Amino acid sequence: MFVESIKSPGLAQLSYLIGDGGEAAVIDPRRDCEIYAEKAREKGCRITHIFETHRNEDLISGAPILAQLTGAAVHHGPNPAGDVTYADTVREGDDFTFGSMRLKVLETPGHTDDSLSFAIYDQDFGDQAIGVFTGDALFVGDVGRTDFYPDRKEEVAGLLYDSLQKILSLGNQAILYPAHGAGSVCGDNMADRDFSTLGYERKYNPMLQIGDRKKFIEKKVAEHHEQPPYFRNMEQLNLDGSAPAARVVTPPVLDADDFYRLIEKAEVIDVRGVTAYLGAHIPGSLAIPCDMIPAFAGWFLDPEDEIVLVADSSSQAQAAARHLARIGFDRVPGFLNTALPGWAAAARPFSSTAVVDADTVKARVQGEDRDWQLLDVRGKKEVEQGTVPGATTIYLGHLPEQLQRLPKGGHYTVMCASGARATIGASILQRSGFENVDVFLGSMGAWKASGNSVIE
Amino acid sequence: MFVESIKSPGLAQLSYLIGDGGEAAVIDPRRDCEIYAEKAREKGCRITHIFETHRNEDLISGAPILAQLTGAAVHHGPNPAGDVTYADTVREGDDFTFGSMRLKVLETPGHTDDSLSFAIYDQDFGDQAIGVFTGDALFVGDVGRTDFYPDRKEEVAGLLYDSLQKILSLGNQAILYPAHGAGSVCGDNMADRDFSTLGYERKYNPMLQIGDRKKFIEKKVAEHHEQPPYFRNMEQLNLDGSAPAARVVTPPVLDADDFYRLIEKAEVIDVRGVTAYLGAHIPGSLAIPCDMIPAFAGWFLDPEDEIVLVADSSSQAQAAARHLARIGFDRVPGFLNTALPGWAAAARPFSSTAVVDADTVKARVQGEDRDWQLLDVRGKKEVEQGTVPGATTIYLGHLPEQLQRLPKGGHYTVMCASGARATIGASILQRSGFENVDVFLGSMGAWKASGNSVIE
Amino acid sequence: MFVESIKSPGLAQLSYLIGDGGEAAVIDPRRDCEIYAEKAREKGCRITHIFETHRNEDLISGAPILAQLTGAAVHHGPNPAGDVTYADTVREGDDFTFGSMRLKVLETPGHTDDSLSFAIYDQDFGDQAIGVFTGDALFVGDVGRTDFYPDRKEEVAGLLYDSLQKILSLGNQAILYPAHGAGSVCGDNMADRDFSTLGYERKYNPMLQIGDRKKFIEKKVAEHHEQPPYFRNMEQLNLDGSAPAARVVTPPVLDADDFYRLIEKAEVIDVRGVTAYLGAHIPGSLAIPCDMIPAFAGWFLDPEDEIVLVADSSSQAQAAARHLARIGFDRVPGFLNTALPGWAAAARPFSSTAVVDADTVKARVQGEDRDWQLLDVRGKKEVEQGTVPGATTIYLGHLPEQLQRLPKGGHYTVMCASGARATIGASILQRSGFENVDVFLGSMGAWKASGNSVIE
Amino acid sequence: MFVESIKSPGLAQLSYLIGDGGEAAVIDPRRDCEIYAEKAREKGCRITHIFETHRNEDLISGAPILAQLTGAAVHHGPNPAGDVTYADTVREGDDFTFGSMRLKVLETPGHTDDSLSFAIYDQDFGDQAIGVFTGDALFVGDVGRTDFYPDRKEEVAGLLYDSLQKILSLGNQAILYPAHGAGSVCGDNMADRDFSTLGYERKYNPMLQIGDRKKFIEKKVAEHHEQPPYFRNMEQLNLDGSAPAARVVTPPVLDADDFYRLIEKAEVIDVRGVTAYLGAHIPGSLAIPCDMIPAFAGWFLDPEDEIVLVADSSSQAQAAARHLARIGFDRVPGFLNTALPGWAAAARPFSSTAVVDADTVKARVQGEDRDWQLLDVRGKKEVEQGTVPGATTIYLGHLPEQLQRLPKGGHYTVMCASGARATIGASILQRSGFENVDVFLGSMGAWKASGNSVIE
Repeated sequence: MFVESIKSPGLAQLSYLIGDGGEAAVIDPRRDCEIYAEKAREKGCRITHIFETHRNEDLISGAPILAQLTGAAVHHGPNPAGDVTYADTVREGDDFTFGSMRLKVLETPGHTDDSLSFAIYDQDFGDQAIGVFTGDALFVGDVGRTDFYPDRKEEVAGLLYDSLQKILSLGNQAILYPAHGAGSVCGDNMADRDFSTLGYERKYNPMLQIGDRKKFIEKKVAEHHEQPPYFRNMEQLNLDGSAPAARVVTPPVLDADDFYRLIEKAEVIDVRGVTAYLGAHIPGSLAIPCDMIPAFAGWFLDPEDEIVLVADSSSQAQAAARHLARIGFDRVPGFLNTALPGWAAAARPFSSTAVVDADTVKARVQGEDRDWQLLDVRGKKEVEQGTVPGATTIYLGHLPEQLQRLPKGGHYTVMCASGARATIGASILQRSGFENVDVFLGSMGAWKASGNSVIE
Repeated sequence: MFVESIKSPGLAQLSYLIGDGGEAAVIDPRRDCEIYAEKAREKGCRITHIFETHRNEDLISGAPILAQLTGAAVHHGPNPAGDVTYADTVREGDDFTFGSMRLKVLETPGHTDDSLSFAIYDQDFGDQAIGVFTGDALFVGDVGRTDFYPDRKEEVAGLLYDSLQKILSLGNQAILYPAHGAGSVCGDNMADRDFSTLGYERKYNPMLQIGDRKKFIEKKVAEHHEQPPYFRNMEQLNLDGSAPAARVVTPPVLDADDFYRLIEKAEVIDVRGVTAYLGAHIPGSLAIPCDMIPAFAGWFLDPEDEIVLVADSSSQAQAAARHLARIGFDRVPGFLNTALPGWAAAARPFSSTAVVDADTVKARVQGEDRDWQLLDVRGKKEVEQGTVPGATTIYLGHLPEQLQRLPKGGHYTVMCASGARATIGASILQRSGFENVDVFLGSMGAWKASGNSVIE
Repeated sequence: MFVESIKSPGLAQLSYLIGDGGEAAVIDPRRDCEIYAEKAREKGCRITHIFETHRNEDLISGAPILAQLTGAAVHHGPNPAGDVTYADTVREGDDFTFGSMRLKVLETPGHTDDSLSFAIYDQDFGDQAIGVFTGDALFVGDVGRTDFYPDRKEEVAGLLYDSLQKILSLGNQAILYPAHGAGSVCGDNMADRDFSTLGYERKYNPMLQIGDRKKFIEKKVAEHHEQPPYFRNMEQLNLDGSAPAARVVTPPVLDADDFYRLIEKAEVIDVRGVTAYLGAHIPGSLAIPCDMIPAFAGWFLDPEDEIVLVADSSSQAQAAARHLARIGFDRVPGFLNTALPGWAAAARPFSSTAVVDADTVKARVQGEDRDWQLLDVRGKKEVEQGTVPGATTIYLGHLPEQLQRLPKGGHYTVMCASGARATIGASILQRSGFENVDVFLGSMGAWKASGNSVIE
Repeated sequence: MFVESIKSPGLAQLSYLIGDGGEAAVIDPRRDCEIYAEKAREKGCRITHIFETHRNEDLISGAPILAQLTGAAVHHGPNPAGDVTYADTVREGDDFTFGSMRLKVLETPGHTDDSLSFAIYDQDFGDQAIGVFTGDALFVGDVGRTDFYPDRKEEVAGLLYDSLQKILSLGNQAILYPAHGAGSVCGDNMADRDFSTLGYERKYNPMLQIGDRKKFIEKKVAEHHEQPPYFRNMEQLNLDGSAPAARVVTPPVLDADDFYRLIEKAEVIDVRGVTAYLGAHIPGSLAIPCDMIPAFAGWFLDPEDEIVLVADSSSQAQAAARHLARIGFDRVPGFLNTALPGWAAAARPFSSTAVVDADTVKARVQGEDRDWQLLDVRGKKEVEQGTVPGATTIYLGHLPEQLQRLPKGGHYTVMCASGARATIGASILQRSGFENVDVFLGSMGAWKASGNSVIE
């Protein structure tokens, strides 16, 4: 009997291959799903079932693709929004057997109406659960978001409260297997640890310390979460069943001429590291460092966009294309195969972005340059815990639509927590024609570590 | 914060890399220990500490080697048998910190006098343990052996009882991380599952259902376990600190001439699969299929032996040499690089071993051939649950020293549970000059599945 | 500028990735063609052209698949048999440029009417060729077969002679890049070496020592080559353009029950090693050891067959499925995931095949058992160089259709050069109901090495 | 019979594994030499001999290490500078056999006194060579340097001329296997292609077109080559036999605190890409992008230095450490595991380097700022083909020792061909206290492509 977790970095999504006695199931497969078939084969197992804890809004489900690949059946919870075309519907109490392992379905709505949990039992031992897959209902250190039904806020928060009680009733001994770990946009306060038990969460998960249903609802309703625009697309695709990602995910190599031909109609995304972009980049490119794609590409790109990459290496381009494919951006005709010195040696244009440190920012804050603006692109909750006096705050995801608030001729210093998101922000300004933009490297971290005061 | 388990197949040994905040520890590293350094690097961590749950008797500890490789300190429990030369001594209550993770030492003697457990805590959450590393004290579904101190049987069984209470007092919420999984010779009744919690074990582990210390001791003292002779060597090496395994573990390729030169003074081990050996093999070779090396090589080989392999491929030879190195057999000058047809095509000698099925064995059992003997090489506990009427029972590990009980001119059919161990047994007979030997393929499984009666 | 060869084992097929300055071409891609895209990416190149030296009869071309994957154009020679649907037609003197490399087309018919060669030049250096891709016209140590147009034997042999003169006229300095290496069925006398030059071949290739066109034709017309029946299928597919191989080539794992369900309508192929089959196998299975699939599967299987594998491991099953896919056998619903001891332990049936050595065969040859027959399954040319007195000779590929020549009740010993092909032969007899079959392990090699006489 | 080349990037060093019939030899193994043992095993071969074409001055020979690993004998040419302690001496006409392959020794001095070439023959075919390993005597498109014996310039150039005649006398049909490919410091005019034949070189290698011994000598004596200071260390190590590189080449991970502790006494090398360094770097660090280490680390580092790396990833740190180990820099206690934004967020210091384009440089050239200096760090031969008017030229390798020529208070723009070497140069200036330094990105390439004039 085995439970193996497969984690997708960036999205911090946890999927699972479980099984016994030659048969296996996958819980919440991601889109690039060959990995489950390979791991099953290594274990000498055949994948016969695929379970979805809910219709995902932050990534494309691989369930319909894996089903085609393996012949396995897909199971989904009852979904009032419409039928999940590639799955059958399972309900409270349905169960499935894999060798000595029994899996039992629990309906645990709240995060979504169709949310399920799956308890597993070792029939060789006893009738209490050894583990439970909780999807986006219960995380390590946090519980699921309940902001997807704006008209029914209180109701769904209450549903989640009830679902959590149902899960906890499985007993302290059960191991917790959630659908996300720390870093996911699906929860703010997850522990930086992917393992826990119901017993441990019951004692220490802050949201499970709220004994009162009403107070729990109040707390949930007051939470603030961002919803990147690509969520809508994910939801639709996860009803209809998405296409498999292109067979060869790595984008082809482009030389400078091919590249020029494409950039007229394509978005140029620079997926190199933060400092590489700052040092020199192609004018008009949008900086989204490879590992930040899962969190930010969905704010700035449209599924119809053609996306040309600037990458350090083909393996970086491959990783970027994989991140993009997981959230529905498949149109990547290639990546530029020229480092910036080579690019520049052919007299092609380049830009760079200056960096400033805390002392410089402090001097500017205290200075009198009215054209200068400090732009803090962190999220609402971070900003509430304090920012630099005088900073303008616009969340990075909202920056493109808020640009008209910013005078074009001004001088902007962009900041976040460290300078990484600030670099994305600076690239948005620069490609929109702002000419005097720099990045506060170190940002809020450096500001505080240097002993400067903050305002809340 | 992470806990990653590394399992060595065959030995079913579980070691762990744990850590947080850029620092990591390894618990019970195996001899081929580069894997820990590599995994730590992937996680961006430096290994600063190595913990041993006890002095292992069934495998060579990699602690002194990994210490040299990484500069980490090694920690071992108080050992009345003498100082572990490469480690310092830690005691009840000592603790260590890795980022937000705290690790606390528990003395849990019984399996060995120096047995330790290590509880881990997430300091960001609370003061109860999130997990515990129990070494050979507590397994999933079983508890440790207590047969290593023949003069103090009751005493050490009682010590183990007390240690288990100490472990359980950490609370139901704690995840269990033992030093072995199913398949290990360190316990007979382990679950076929590597994950559990203290809460689950408290409810379902049969040995933890014995509430009475005295009854627990009686049960433990009555248990039967085998002790392969190589255990002595492991114990000594794990006091003194073993040499690193040879840098390139794969044995060199030998052509038939090199091979002939070596086999005069070397043991020839055929590590191919069971049926490959049966089909044709080199006369005088001992069959130990690659994945059975951890369980059986230590019964038949001496650390001073030179060992020449017959393998299907260089990757099989490499796996075999790795299995051998983990239990102290380093002298492997090479493997034969010729398949048997090629070997035979040069008019070199070969043998084969006939197989028989349940019907044939039944006919022989009912027949009157007094020279025929059915030889059951399974272990004591298996035989007690029933064997074929009339079978002679000698445990495979004891076969070499018991051969004088068997008349050389007889006709032998060797059996076990399926025919795999029987093939090893047949090879022992054949290379000792027995000429009329066959293997009951399917063995006890086929005997019962065919509806034949057994005697207990 | 680079030339990288990719060799497919078994078929001994050589394909090439060549290029310069960011652009690349593939010559004679095989069906599982992702490897070319990956290698091009590593080199920072984009594949823009695919060249076929001729319509292959022994394997499926990957050209149409790779074209779809990369957008490259496919180029083929003028083909009187009909249009290659996925390619355009190139002719003598056409040329293509990749950075500093120029590739020039030579029409070199003979092996097939559409055979092309491609000479390459380094434009930075000079106007003589640095290398030439000769397809199946010229090999290292041999020249191409001319037996594919039975009505035009002399004509096509003469065409080949002329084509070889054209190739040699490129000069001694040119490196030779043929489409096959030693082990291919496309030539009998290839050197066991994949590298040569036109200068070296001119001096030492035996067929190039025949200075006289007429004598060359006589020699070619007198040659004997086998044509496995799957060749017809390849030829058709390589006109029409084949489907890509299934996305996941590894067949799924089957447990014994799944396996039983399938074998009623499927062929069971045992792809384990020779001795593993001999030791124990599933009754009715056909032995084709994995690395012998390219040479023999096409004689015994039909493209419509469902093929269930018996393999030692999933990696062996994967290799077998890949070999099968390259020659057009795609319907592989799975492989059995149980070793024979486990299979037998459930009281399922098994067989084994006895082996005999040279002394036993000699005794039988000299004996008087009129029911015994020695069956030599080697090819015509091998048999002509001598066999065991009294042996019946039927080439392995023809065995199924010749079985009616052999009385069912007889006792057969099958031989070849070493015992490997003999094992395939024995399995054909056994699954056709012959009950008294054994294999001469060592075969002709052992017979001669033991000093026995042969008849020619 | 096989010849497989193994190329070490950066050094562009070519080593070879050759063999037949189960026995293999390695020619010019590099220091990290496990790769030869692995490849030999894949081919089913045992390495029995190691040949060195000469005592290398640009890299550490792996011969003594590989000899220890495999038991093979090492063969070296007669060396007047003293005995190569780990090798025996072979001479003109000595030969060795590997299956059907015969290898014959040719003494071909000139590049060094101990230079050998090795001709190989296929004994199954004929008595002319099929290939020749020429070491640093003959390259594709160039011949070896003769600047290592300053007192005997004419003599050794003449020796090389004679050696080349000896090599060419093997015949046009022989394939050329040199010890370096394009990019090596061992020749300036090598073709960007690793394959050729003696016939092709005889026709097109410019140095082989010089028919007159005297003119050849004149030409060689007039050549200019750089000799990085680490060459002396290589020469000594390659007499004495070097230590194996540390077992785990990847340097351990360092957090910022570990890093601070080390940098007081260590060199900090930033091995990230050029633009990453320009964007932000740690003050005092020396920029040597990973793939430029083989060419430049030997100019700036001392074998006794401790070297701490700044890298993007552990795999980049590993590649950097491997490059360093090949040329004798083993003391790498670790690499920094923090990206610059994280580094800066703790208020730690950072710097950046501005970039300028051709228009800016042109304006400055035409301007009147007398404090400004354009610094061209390219090599002598490049500069001779033209530079920007007014540029100061100091070869990058000589920059540290020439710094006193440059006034500290000046404003410097560093240039090379593209900006890559210029970035290394800028980092040298910056860490020596020059505060006003920028990099001409695009450099000579952009200058010319923009239509500006150059002076020669």
